[in-house]
Amino acid sequence: MIRQIAFNLPPFSRGFHLITDEILKHVDLEGVDAGLLNVFIKHTSASLTINENADATVRTDFESHFNTCVPENAPYYQHTYEGPDDMPAHLKASTLGSSVTIPITNGRLNLGTWQGIYLGEHRDHGGSRKLVVTVYS
Amino acid sequence: MIRQIAFNLPPFSRGFHLITDEILKHVDLEGVDAGLLNVFIKHTSASLTINENADATVRTDFESHFNTCVPENAPYYQHTYEGPDDMPAHLKASTLGSSVTIPITNGRLNLGTWQGIYLGEHRDHGGSRKLVVTVYS
Amino acid sequence: MIRQIAFNLPPFSRGFHLITDEILKHVDLEGVDAGLLNVFIKHTSASLTINENADATVRTDFESHFNTCVPENAPYYQHTYEGPDDMPAHLKASTLGSSVTIPITNGRLNLGTWQGIYLGEHRDHGGSRKLVVTVYS
Repeated sequence: MIRQIAFNLPPFSRGFHLITDEILKHVDLEGVDAGLLNVFIKHTSASLTINENADATVRTDFESHFNTCVPENAPYYQHTYEGPDDMPAHLKASTLGSSVTIPITNGRLNLGTWQGIYLGEHRDHGGSRKLVVTVYS
Repeated sequence: MIRQIAFNLPPFSRGFHLITDEILKHVDLEGVDAGLLNVFIKHTSASLTINENADATVRTDFESHFNTCVPENAPYYQHTYEGPDDMPAHLKASTLGSSVTIPITNGRLNLGTWQGIYLGEHRDHGGSRKLVVTVYS
Repeated sequence: MIRQIAFNLPPFSRGFHLITDEILKHVDLEGVDAGLLNVFIKHTSASLTINENADATVRTDFESHFNTCVPENAPYYQHTYEGPDDMPAHLKASTLGSSVTIPITNGRLNLGTWQGIYLGEHRDHGGSRKLVVTVYS
């Protein structure tokens, strides 16, 4: 059995944001004994990843780290006409990934205690982002 | 319902290449109302990722960036006997990933307007690469 | 048809470790003509990735590379109270990923000749790690 739903996230500021609850608002897992949930982001300058859902400084440090590893204005960038945040956003998106796949068990996401789904918003003004959630059961 | 097909890509030069159309030549999504497509690459020195399908300089900048972040001849490499491009290729492959999973909706890949599937060819002479495409619907 | 099993890995030292056989001990793929296997790790400081299953120096070089790219004690880390290995572990986990998805063909994982599943253990004393394996067929 497959269920699929598409929806838009509200706009987020540049950085990393917990969106587990936002996703679960749109999809009902009740009655799914065992399955998989795939979340896909339809953009090339934002990403999805899984990490700590507790201390907000983890998300702050994610932003600092990826800004250091994927700098703006690297001398070798050729794709520069959409602004200094654009090419780094593409690189961060592929480094982190465009989708996450999570097991569903007994009607719930089978995440670890400390795991949540992060949106990586890599543009200064990325606006609302489109997600597609697919549930297999 | 599951369909699976294995095929070889033509050889690509080192760098990043759009292969969405090449994949869609081998798999018919007509009639798939909702599902997921998984593409898997059977190699440890090439990768799959999703990024911008329009401006070719994005792919050029990907190659520059990952060559900078994952340098050849790092002093700590022990796995060097297959050439200076080998160990960086393994590291790039795991940083970017061995598979992509994309929703299918109404008989088409439900990609964003600007998204395409990239092959990351990380060897100087990687040759033809083997893919396995699995469609769930 | 969906099968799902949860189990714990034995504790591994910090670094990268081949766990393909450990996973296959827990899941029987006989009779699966075509499908997908998803392995998910329920932690935010360990990761799963696919890379070379032969020369152990590849795993050593992975540890050296990611320690260089994601240093301990970066001056901008705010999330430091769980020790110097903690924040880098979170960053490595998201860079490499929390799950792998692999095609199953004719009762076997359809991996390339040189591919194996790696556990990335990014903590100094991570202990036993929880996995969830889901098989679609």
